[in-house]
Amino acid sequence: MNKNKLFEGKKMHDLAKELWPISRSLTGEGNRKTLKILKKVCKNLKIFEINSDTKVFDWKIPNEWVARKAWIKDSKGKKILDFTKNNLHLMGYSIPVHKKINFKELKKKIHTLKNKPNAIPYVTSYYNKDWGFSLSFNDFKKLDKKETYEVLIDTELKKGSLTFGEILIPGKTKKEILISTNICHPSMANNELSGPVVSTYLAKWINKKKNRKYSYRILFLPETIGAIAYLSKKYKYLKKNVVAGYNVVCVGDNKKYSYLPSRNGDTFSDIIAQYVLKTKIKKFKQYSWLDRGSDERQYCSPGIDLPIASIMRSKYGTFPEYHTSEDNLLKVVTPAGLQGGYDILKDALELIEKNFFLKSLVLCEPFYNKRGMYPKFTVKGDNFRELMLKMNHIVSYSDNKIPAIAIAEKLSITFDKFLSLVKILERKKIVKKIDY
Amino acid sequence: MNKNKLFEGKKMHDLAKELWPISRSLTGEGNRKTLKILKKVCKNLKIFEINSDTKVFDWKIPNEWVARKAWIKDSKGKKILDFTKNNLHLMGYSIPVHKKINFKELKKKIHTLKNKPNAIPYVTSYYNKDWGFSLSFNDFKKLDKKETYEVLIDTELKKGSLTFGEILIPGKTKKEILISTNICHPSMANNELSGPVVSTYLAKWINKKKNRKYSYRILFLPETIGAIAYLSKKYKYLKKNVVAGYNVVCVGDNKKYSYLPSRNGDTFSDIIAQYVLKTKIKKFKQYSWLDRGSDERQYCSPGIDLPIASIMRSKYGTFPEYHTSEDNLLKVVTPAGLQGGYDILKDALELIEKNFFLKSLVLCEPFYNKRGMYPKFTVKGDNFRELMLKMNHIVSYSDNKIPAIAIAEKLSITFDKFLSLVKILERKKIVKKIDY
Amino acid sequence: MNKNKLFEGKKMHDLAKELWPISRSLTGEGNRKTLKILKKVCKNLKIFEINSDTKVFDWKIPNEWVARKAWIKDSKGKKILDFTKNNLHLMGYSIPVHKKINFKELKKKIHTLKNKPNAIPYVTSYYNKDWGFSLSFNDFKKLDKKETYEVLIDTELKKGSLTFGEILIPGKTKKEILISTNICHPSMANNELSGPVVSTYLAKWINKKKNRKYSYRILFLPETIGAIAYLSKKYKYLKKNVVAGYNVVCVGDNKKYSYLPSRNGDTFSDIIAQYVLKTKIKKFKQYSWLDRGSDERQYCSPGIDLPIASIMRSKYGTFPEYHTSEDNLLKVVTPAGLQGGYDILKDALELIEKNFFLKSLVLCEPFYNKRGMYPKFTVKGDNFRELMLKMNHIVSYSDNKIPAIAIAEKLSITFDKFLSLVKILERKKIVKKIDY
Repeated sequence: MNKNKLFEGKKMHDLAKELWPISRSLTGEGNRKTLKILKKVCKNLKIFEINSDTKVFDWKIPNEWVARKAWIKDSKGKKILDFTKNNLHLMGYSIPVHKKINFKELKKKIHTLKNKPNAIPYVTSYYNKDWGFSLSFNDFKKLDKKETYEVLIDTELKKGSLTFGEILIPGKTKKEILISTNICHPSMANNELSGPVVSTYLAKWINKKKNRKYSYRILFLPETIGAIAYLSKKYKYLKKNVVAGYNVVCVGDNKKYSYLPSRNGDTFSDIIAQYVLKTKIKKFKQYSWLDRGSDERQYCSPGIDLPIASIMRSKYGTFPEYHTSEDNLLKVVTPAGLQGGYDILKDALELIEKNFFLKSLVLCEPFYNKRGMYPKFTVKGDNFRELMLKMNHIVSYSDNKIPAIAIAEKLSITFDKFLSLVKILERKKIVKKIDY
Repeated sequence: MNKNKLFEGKKMHDLAKELWPISRSLTGEGNRKTLKILKKVCKNLKIFEINSDTKVFDWKIPNEWVARKAWIKDSKGKKILDFTKNNLHLMGYSIPVHKKINFKELKKKIHTLKNKPNAIPYVTSYYNKDWGFSLSFNDFKKLDKKETYEVLIDTELKKGSLTFGEILIPGKTKKEILISTNICHPSMANNELSGPVVSTYLAKWINKKKNRKYSYRILFLPETIGAIAYLSKKYKYLKKNVVAGYNVVCVGDNKKYSYLPSRNGDTFSDIIAQYVLKTKIKKFKQYSWLDRGSDERQYCSPGIDLPIASIMRSKYGTFPEYHTSEDNLLKVVTPAGLQGGYDILKDALELIEKNFFLKSLVLCEPFYNKRGMYPKFTVKGDNFRELMLKMNHIVSYSDNKIPAIAIAEKLSITFDKFLSLVKILERKKIVKKIDY
Repeated sequence: MNKNKLFEGKKMHDLAKELWPISRSLTGEGNRKTLKILKKVCKNLKIFEINSDTKVFDWKIPNEWVARKAWIKDSKGKKILDFTKNNLHLMGYSIPVHKKINFKELKKKIHTLKNKPNAIPYVTSYYNKDWGFSLSFNDFKKLDKKETYEVLIDTELKKGSLTFGEILIPGKTKKEILISTNICHPSMANNELSGPVVSTYLAKWINKKKNRKYSYRILFLPETIGAIAYLSKKYKYLKKNVVAGYNVVCVGDNKKYSYLPSRNGDTFSDIIAQYVLKTKIKKFKQYSWLDRGSDERQYCSPGIDLPIASIMRSKYGTFPEYHTSEDNLLKVVTPAGLQGGYDILKDALELIEKNFFLKSLVLCEPFYNKRGMYPKFTVKGDNFRELMLKMNHIVSYSDNKIPAIAIAEKLSITFDKFLSLVKILERKKIVKKIDY
């Protein structure tokens, strides 16, 4: 992979590093700080707040969580765990506590992973009031079972708001493409700093993209409650206008590519996702709707039914570092990994923009000779006969019914090759593109 | 198989034994006697008569057949064949005869099965006036070729009627399930004492079943002419109201299970039949419409088009004892065999009753926590996460379009398991059942 | 293959021999002469002219080409190539030339096939003004590289017309079957004297055919421009009335059979073509729309969309003698080859004529006995039970929806066998044919 090819990859990796130490959760200052940093990359990102207790479908917006300090000290006052060192040490949405407890009691409040002894597990308790710590199993083993420990969790659950970001980029039509990603994960990389950084750079690219056919909506939401809150306000408009879209999650490791279908399984988003993965990546992992686990759960739920699929690298729940401190920006998420996630999604969006229908402008086959296409026309490096034959195949399918991508597939050629041939046919007034 | 599991099996087998010696045919006293015995088990069985010569579609009701005596004596007066010993000895609908004939003449009138030398074959001549006897090949071989024989067939074909039975069991809706079986076979067991005894016990069970959604119509008909006669009176009503149904035939041996589709092949009856066989039996024999041979021929004929499939054990025509005296209640039809036929049909009917559509009562995923379902909810012996996931899958398919059974299949769980989860979701006001 | 079986084969082969020496092209006297010879076989063939320069869709009718003489002489006046010996020696639509040139210049104007050293290649330049010769590579090698040659091409491109032939044969309905073939190929046999001779004999047979259901349109056109010209005048009528049809090309060699689908791939023509090939030929080569190369390119183009498929013997472009002087009436096209092409197309047309829908005249199964069909009815040589069963299967599908051919396929019997059974069922007033 050459240097240039990692241009955005490195920038996204740097951006992820900047976001890494911030303590994010469903709500709170960490999320606001995160969005402000993303806004520096994409000026048109707008930040919105929804008040605690607002009813959103079956749910209500939870109180805002403020996490100031959290530590465990031994009887000598030595901190054996400190939230400022790694925000995974504190269970998300922990309620405040300050007391002395023995090892037996402490043990119940500490989450470890025996089979990944160096990893601090990611644990939350959003809706059941509780408190807890996470510790690597190796550090846990070092604890003195006879000690009395002082635990402090200086947090607060207060009326406040849930914060989310939205970038709206208008196109020629109100019909829109939806990109959605999550900002609720603390210091983890593939799941989930990769999503917001890739989505931000996609937005940056869309902003610059000329002659956008479609409008774009890029959402930065805390998972589940954020999507539900957003949909509760907007789903009627979205049902009317969203023609395709992707949930952008786990797009930063460099191991493999994955695809998780929409509930319908056969939407425009699914066709495009499968096409780009088949043509650009060749070997990718195909999941089923039953394997879902992110905000497609909301976007595709009965009555919402948006055409949202997922193009991922290693899917959540399938890589060993998932939901632990080991899902980091060193070993797991790399510039190359992010670049791959960014590129494939960009390819999908470009393909959506590029898709169209073809209508033949002549009845029967065209008279290529009068257009200088036969036999004088040649494209350098291409076999002439082969090329004319392919163009003629395209004309034979230009019935304004078969999507351009499907014609390219019938001909077993890449979409770029297909487009270059269509361009000639258009210039020669043989076919006409019908946009959407 | 434990004792309890054969509860109905033994009763059905005893009932079949009681019916065994009765001489049944298309019409006649044997059929009335048979229906009266079944009525003792199911009080709401009603017995109807249709007069001889009544026109029923392309057919007319034949004369009623009275079979009093039938024997062959040798010149010494020794009976070498006697109808009272086995009613298969006399060809069904034999006209009367009384004369002395030599062996050569007699031979033409005796049906045997060389390749099943101990079996008396089942032979009828309903619509061509003729007479004849059936004899095992071994007994036939013993006949003295030089003897003169006296043959007596004391029968009568008289204006009378065709008898059939009907059980109507109302449900919450006029929409109904049709069960049809045959009462025209004399002393044979799988084809066909199994059908009427299983159908009678199914009716008994339906009678007791509480909160029946559907109405039920259980018919006891002589094959072909009975179904045609019945349909000629009722087919318009049935076309409007029958949503599913089965022709119940060959449901008493304990060898295998079989399924013969309706002509359409994809009706509700077919979906249910395949589901119960796949989930309860696993390995079963699938036949095609071209293999048909019982009253589905009438129910599915063009212009009638009822959704009637067949769930069977060993299908007519496929087991060696078929249509002979060897299709008996000892070797072929057993309590276990009958119980299996009864159970699988009961399962199908229960599944029809249990089927429904699901509608999610919330948009987006439900907030399980406020319903105490997360993480405190557990079902004993079940893995909690697994269970919640399955419930969430169900909710994701609750679009009021996918039949409940199809959702269970998507989840690869039994329908009972599925129902237990739906019950929780209903109680928690997350989904609503739409009945039919 | 017995003598009688080649009855038309020999006649068609003789006709092809008569047509062989004529110089055919897109236009000109050769085409008129060809059509006049065909008209002797089929009196109702009508000959039409379309003026040069007439606009036909994207094309216009080219000037008429007159080819009088063409030769190359060496300095001693010896003809080393003469158009009168083989009309393939002159490139089609060559412009006139008369000059002396050296070997180097001459070489550029001579087409040869190094890998088929005895074959004269078929070359044309219809729409780019040019001239040229074709020569076998072996003869080309004999040329003296130091010689100066005199080349003469006495041709003319003049305002005139394009000639085509049409046979219209009325049937009971205006709905019609379209047969199209090409008359633009000079002395070559499989591609393409086979097409016009087989089409002419098909027309002759259709003329004599009694009780034609469908009307027939048999077209003799120069390839591409002829079909485009014809369609430009008639396509609206054809779209309304053509129910099936075949492009008749490459139907004269005795090697294999081939099928090239219509663009739609699933028209009545396709169903019939596949049926006759499957039942009569068993093993045949199936091509795809992407392999097309004759006038189906026009008939199936977007907006024209006629149901035209191709039933061929060895397809154009796939046999070694294709488009050379070796595609001849000795080794390649034989009476047996032509007979095979004729027979399979006749079979297809007969099947189209014979197809119908069936409607049962009774509800439920018929009472065969009262029609003397049970058990007395027998067809000599047939197993009675088997036959009754098949008839009963047919009745069970007589729903006026399934095409007769599809019923025959369900029963795995030939259409002739099927028809013989339907005839009995009709005679017995059990089913009724619905024609089209």
